[in-house]
Amino acid sequence: MGLSKNTLKLITSLSQKKYRQKHNLFVAEGVKVVNEFLNSSFRVKELYTTDASLFNYEESIEISEAELKKISKLKSPNKVIGVFEIPKEKEISSDKFTLVLDEVNDPGNLGTIIRLCDWFGITQLVCSKNTVDCFNFKVVQATMGSLTRVQIVYTDIISFLSETSLPTFTADMDGDNVYKSQLPDKAVLVMGNEANGISKEVNDVIQQKLTIPRFGDIQKTESLNVATATAILLSEFKRA
Amino acid sequence: MGLSKNTLKLITSLSQKKYRQKHNLFVAEGVKVVNEFLNSSFRVKELYTTDASLFNYEESIEISEAELKKISKLKSPNKVIGVFEIPKEKEISSDKFTLVLDEVNDPGNLGTIIRLCDWFGITQLVCSKNTVDCFNFKVVQATMGSLTRVQIVYTDIISFLSETSLPTFTADMDGDNVYKSQLPDKAVLVMGNEANGISKEVNDVIQQKLTIPRFGDIQKTESLNVATATAILLSEFKRA
Repeated sequence: MGLSKNTLKLITSLSQKKYRQKHNLFVAEGVKVVNEFLNSSFRVKELYTTDASLFNYEESIEISEAELKKISKLKSPNKVIGVFEIPKEKEISSDKFTLVLDEVNDPGNLGTIIRLCDWFGITQLVCSKNTVDCFNFKVVQATMGSLTRVQIVYTDIISFLSETSLPTFTADMDGDNVYKSQLPDKAVLVMGNEANGISKEVNDVIQQKLTIPRFGDIQKTESLNVATATAILLSEFKRA
Repeated sequence: MGLSKNTLKLITSLSQKKYRQKHNLFVAEGVKVVNEFLNSSFRVKELYTTDASLFNYEESIEISEAELKKISKLKSPNKVIGVFEIPKEKEISSDKFTLVLDEVNDPGNLGTIIRLCDWFGITQLVCSKNTVDCFNFKVVQATMGSLTRVQIVYTDIISFLSETSLPTFTADMDGDNVYKSQLPDKAVLVMGNEANGISKEVNDVIQQKLTIPRFGDIQKTESLNVATATAILLSEFKRA
């Protein structure tokens, strides 16, 4: 069996968003991560492995360690590379708690946020079109199974926010103390870019701003990272 | 002026913990980060910059862009590299809210956690000796000023936990629901390793386990990242 030149080229190309979109495919690596996708509703296109016995998939293609090393993006390749189909985006539901991301750029942050959604039972994540792609390799490796349980849609978030009938919230330094606010069960929470927060256009259509109070030296403290701020706000919505 | 061979060697060596400890020095880069350290109680040893006018420090050493590039660990070097003295560890106070880390390995996680401490006004962070070094370059760059406001001590955490008179807590899947627990103002909260949680020895000396309830599919959800779990628990202690 082994790897053809075309396969090598395809897999390498999938580290770029434009080729993922063109082929409608993404790559996942490592025994645990690949098994999470195999055991989900995601459809596998090809499985390249040095040990087919580890996977409940009959059509896997055996490759050598050297071949695996050639196509792997991991420092320590771990037995398998799976090529999976990017699922069709679901219709956005207007009736459930939704987290919205406005230009979150860092794959690590998106990965952490997807895991948070999974933890808090938030199954709908709506991302602005300039938010980092959730099929980016780093996001896939960081989120693992969570990516299979959270529906992610990339869309025009201004339209979405203008049309939703649920109350809309965001984090802001001059908002209401989140610890003292009555938070509804169903809401739309918008989190913004790492450096700039939410854009002005988005800010204009949001109804309520929430503040996580600072307890440290107020003049000097750095802002919270977007993933940790999201963790705290989702916890506040869900603890009620 | 410019860079001597010895300087180059010294700065390069400081990317390793053993040389940071030998020389009692660490490196910070970039205008914003370096200024945060210059404007703190930290003492600067040397400042190498392509533009001395940006810093309120008279003894800076002007270097060329090419020299900066040679010593920088950043993809896009940003005008300055500062070498700072590692401050003497303070005595541990037994009377204030303390976060304890048991073998947190990832510099990004430690950086995020230091920023969280700063946000929540927690000025004492006690780390097990096998926790990643807080003067690791990635930690320094991620935490910026927060590192100057949070006292960090590396010690035998079992002794510390055995001796403290404050109530001790940790996160655990089989603990008390954190949303329903009465949490004291002053406490010791222990967070563990990314893959393995807290060690058995540490677990044995902790009084109360807290659980952040899952709302997602309980069978399948990945665990929370240590930094986001810390964010939620600190928020719970402070919101009361």
